[in-house]
Amino acid sequence: MEQKLNQLKARLARIADLSGARSVLSWDQQVMMPVGGAVARGDQMGTISGLAHEMFVDEEVGALLDELYQEYAGNAYDSDEVSLVRVARRDYEKRVKIPTDLVVEMAKTAAMGRQAWQQARAENNFAIFAPLLEKTVGLQVRLADILGSKSGNPYDALLDRFEPGLTFEYIDGVFSGLKKSLVDLIEQIAANRDRVSDDVLKRDYPEAAQIAISSEMAQALGYDFNRGRLDKSAHPFTSGGIHDARITTRVDDHFLPSCVMAVIHEAGHGMHMQSIDEALYRTGLDTFGLAIAESQSRFFENVIGRSRAFWTYWYPKLQATFPHLSDTPMETFYKAINKSAPSLIRVEADEVTYGLHIMLRFEIENELINQRIKVADLPALWNERMQSYLGVTPPNDTDGVLQDIHWSQGGFGYFPDYLLGSILASQLWDAFKREQPDIEERIACGEFAPLLLWQREAIMKHGNKFTFPEIAERATGQSLSWEPYMNYLRAKFGDVYGLRAKGH
Amino acid sequence: MEQKLNQLKARLARIADLSGARSVLSWDQQVMMPVGGAVARGDQMGTISGLAHEMFVDEEVGALLDELYQEYAGNAYDSDEVSLVRVARRDYEKRVKIPTDLVVEMAKTAAMGRQAWQQARAENNFAIFAPLLEKTVGLQVRLADILGSKSGNPYDALLDRFEPGLTFEYIDGVFSGLKKSLVDLIEQIAANRDRVSDDVLKRDYPEAAQIAISSEMAQALGYDFNRGRLDKSAHPFTSGGIHDARITTRVDDHFLPSCVMAVIHEAGHGMHMQSIDEALYRTGLDTFGLAIAESQSRFFENVIGRSRAFWTYWYPKLQATFPHLSDTPMETFYKAINKSAPSLIRVEADEVTYGLHIMLRFEIENELINQRIKVADLPALWNERMQSYLGVTPPNDTDGVLQDIHWSQGGFGYFPDYLLGSILASQLWDAFKREQPDIEERIACGEFAPLLLWQREAIMKHGNKFTFPEIAERATGQSLSWEPYMNYLRAKFGDVYGLRAKGH
Repeated sequence: MEQKLNQLKARLARIADLSGARSVLSWDQQVMMPVGGAVARGDQMGTISGLAHEMFVDEEVGALLDELYQEYAGNAYDSDEVSLVRVARRDYEKRVKIPTDLVVEMAKTAAMGRQAWQQARAENNFAIFAPLLEKTVGLQVRLADILGSKSGNPYDALLDRFEPGLTFEYIDGVFSGLKKSLVDLIEQIAANRDRVSDDVLKRDYPEAAQIAISSEMAQALGYDFNRGRLDKSAHPFTSGGIHDARITTRVDDHFLPSCVMAVIHEAGHGMHMQSIDEALYRTGLDTFGLAIAESQSRFFENVIGRSRAFWTYWYPKLQATFPHLSDTPMETFYKAINKSAPSLIRVEADEVTYGLHIMLRFEIENELINQRIKVADLPALWNERMQSYLGVTPPNDTDGVLQDIHWSQGGFGYFPDYLLGSILASQLWDAFKREQPDIEERIACGEFAPLLLWQREAIMKHGNKFTFPEIAERATGQSLSWEPYMNYLRAKFGDVYGLRAKGH
Repeated sequence: MEQKLNQLKARLARIADLSGARSVLSWDQQVMMPVGGAVARGDQMGTISGLAHEMFVDEEVGALLDELYQEYAGNAYDSDEVSLVRVARRDYEKRVKIPTDLVVEMAKTAAMGRQAWQQARAENNFAIFAPLLEKTVGLQVRLADILGSKSGNPYDALLDRFEPGLTFEYIDGVFSGLKKSLVDLIEQIAANRDRVSDDVLKRDYPEAAQIAISSEMAQALGYDFNRGRLDKSAHPFTSGGIHDARITTRVDDHFLPSCVMAVIHEAGHGMHMQSIDEALYRTGLDTFGLAIAESQSRFFENVIGRSRAFWTYWYPKLQATFPHLSDTPMETFYKAINKSAPSLIRVEADEVTYGLHIMLRFEIENELINQRIKVADLPALWNERMQSYLGVTPPNDTDGVLQDIHWSQGGFGYFPDYLLGSILASQLWDAFKREQPDIEERIACGEFAPLLLWQREAIMKHGNKFTFPEIAERATGQSLSWEPYMNYLRAKFGDVYGLRAKGH
């Protein structure tokens, strides 16, 4: 059986190498590649993806997985070997079902979809995008049907692609309790909106100094520049693996958080990659699902990076870097970076309103994939719900239903992971503080190492050995719950906006 | 037969994609990669190389090539299709012969060889490197034996790997006539060495300004930055393909040619890649051998980039960039960048002495691979020949037999291509001037476009459809000859050093 395992590992190692190579090619495409290189890069990435797929769905891989699965049945999957077989078999069973013609059709439609989506946005005309979106939804419905789901809800099959083990029922169970409370908090904040201004963030912040202090923060938090680097790109992202996990940011000379908070967010992802157990290298377990990913990036960005303790340490350094801040007290700055107000655009939303942007998408996706609503009705539906959840109505579809790229790429089932990550981040923070009650004092003194150490043991080192529900329970001793998240938001924003406690 | 051709092309296209991906990974490794990424990058490149090899030596590829070869036998290989089959079949027959164990052994020995070579250089101790070099020579002898050669000289099999079609006899026929004439010219220059100083090149040249003017020159010569980019690396190189051909340089703040001439050299390679016929993309014909490569880079670097016409246009701009040059006349600068003197290090050698560095290596390689000399005797042999050819004796092996990395990597048969490239460059220049007698006046006015246009048609667009001897004859109407090269050197350095014409 050892021999079979080694055969499997040798195959998975080559597939992991291709995946690592593809991630370098993708990083290069977004950060370094000259414009003329696009077609050739598409060919290279297409060939590498195709080879990786062929090598993975090979019959011999299936036979090895079946044999090993029988052998290991009943063993706890704490062991790397049992996890390896469980995860690889789960992925194999999904991927082997997808016929090549569907893969090709989805890739083609995604390429056309991106173009149509861009044009629709530029011309503020949903009708340009609608036919492609209808086709995309149709393909996703077909994909969901092929993949199947235990519950019978086809949306589950799509949720599972981005974070294995997630279902509509699980997510809805978490979101539905949260929704009312969020709306309530948003109303309280709205009644006191004048108490916080973010004007100070809109001053002159020269790029080089922003990059320098952001890098310093990333390094202080534990991001290892010997196994990574920081560059600029149109949209911030993290790419790579254990030994080379690169992060990017964007810079706005007149809005400080664009760069600083993006770097902290991506450094969270980067440290996550860098902290995966070396023993998982090249096994295919050296990666992670998107909700687990967001629990780390949002932990560092929001829970830590927008905390009073964090800025108690960093604000004097920020003032030294940008001397015009000497007229602004730390409290004013702290409130500014936590300003909350309903807005149209998800990626610009604050911590409180963000959840509703996600819920709206989650609900619409579920209805679309269950074919209960039509693509043609989306703009009106979107605007109605924005008004009902957040009290704002998009003046046009570009700032409404057309704002995100995900659907144009067939990315249905992706959005909820952002919010699930935030929810887990709060629950992790509670568990962490139970173990280390003085952690905020230590952060305020610039002692950041305990954060990474704790997250590494709780979450990061495991790669994708465990599902999101499993890892939430393992790391915090409890099932995922929205309540720690809501308590965190109430306490923080109650303080920032001077709200009266409502006794929750 | 059309169908068979398309099957072959589809396979070659995927292999070309892997080769393109590998070249991005290699560029990244040398320019961007954080130090920690080395092992993972090695795994990725090993897997991609291995897959490309497996896909190419596949039996079905062999069968397709045999059938198509029969079909096309006798057709002129001007056509892309016939060339495709000829070149792919030639490569197939070579690569299919090499057993996997030898490939693995060579790769392992190269990795150890690099380390031993670096240590030997650092400690100036040839004995540290000798055992690895003996092993490497042994593997090369075995490889040559497996590949075979028509002449019976095993060195031919190795020469053929870097530039198909080259043999010891062919190269020796070119080099042996040249050697005496070079020695003669070097003696004449030595007798007048005080007439040229390169002190002006050793002033203060800030990096950013060097990069800026070098980029401007590359662009003016025709290098397309929309399909390339310029970065820094330890050793300058060019990497990529038609649509994304990147160049690198190094910068020495106190020696101008390090950057400027490297950029022109690499831009020559870059324009070569960018100018390959689009119809050859993804066929495996979209590359070129090393001697053909050097004919382009050395044409732009030496024939053009060290010419009086070139600097007539650029020197005023250089003076504007570096105002301290205002005290130096153009003639002084022109002579400085053409200073010639025997020296120890090949990569720092001038145009005149360079050839002898190559001949020494070419002769030693031939003797080593024919097992007529022993590794242990190399240091003494090297020093003797340096004294006899160039009149200098290395004070230590680091600046002698240990100076080049090539042998540590199993790169036997590579060196002669550098000089063959220079020789062809002169012959191309003569052919070019016959067609466009006023070209030097045009260059002096900043009109560079004709250079790339001519080289594109003569050489660049063909990729590797033709062998080096073939392309020399096609482009110039004559077999390769050392005489145009020697005439070029005599005229140029006779002028620079004010030598009396000897009536050649």
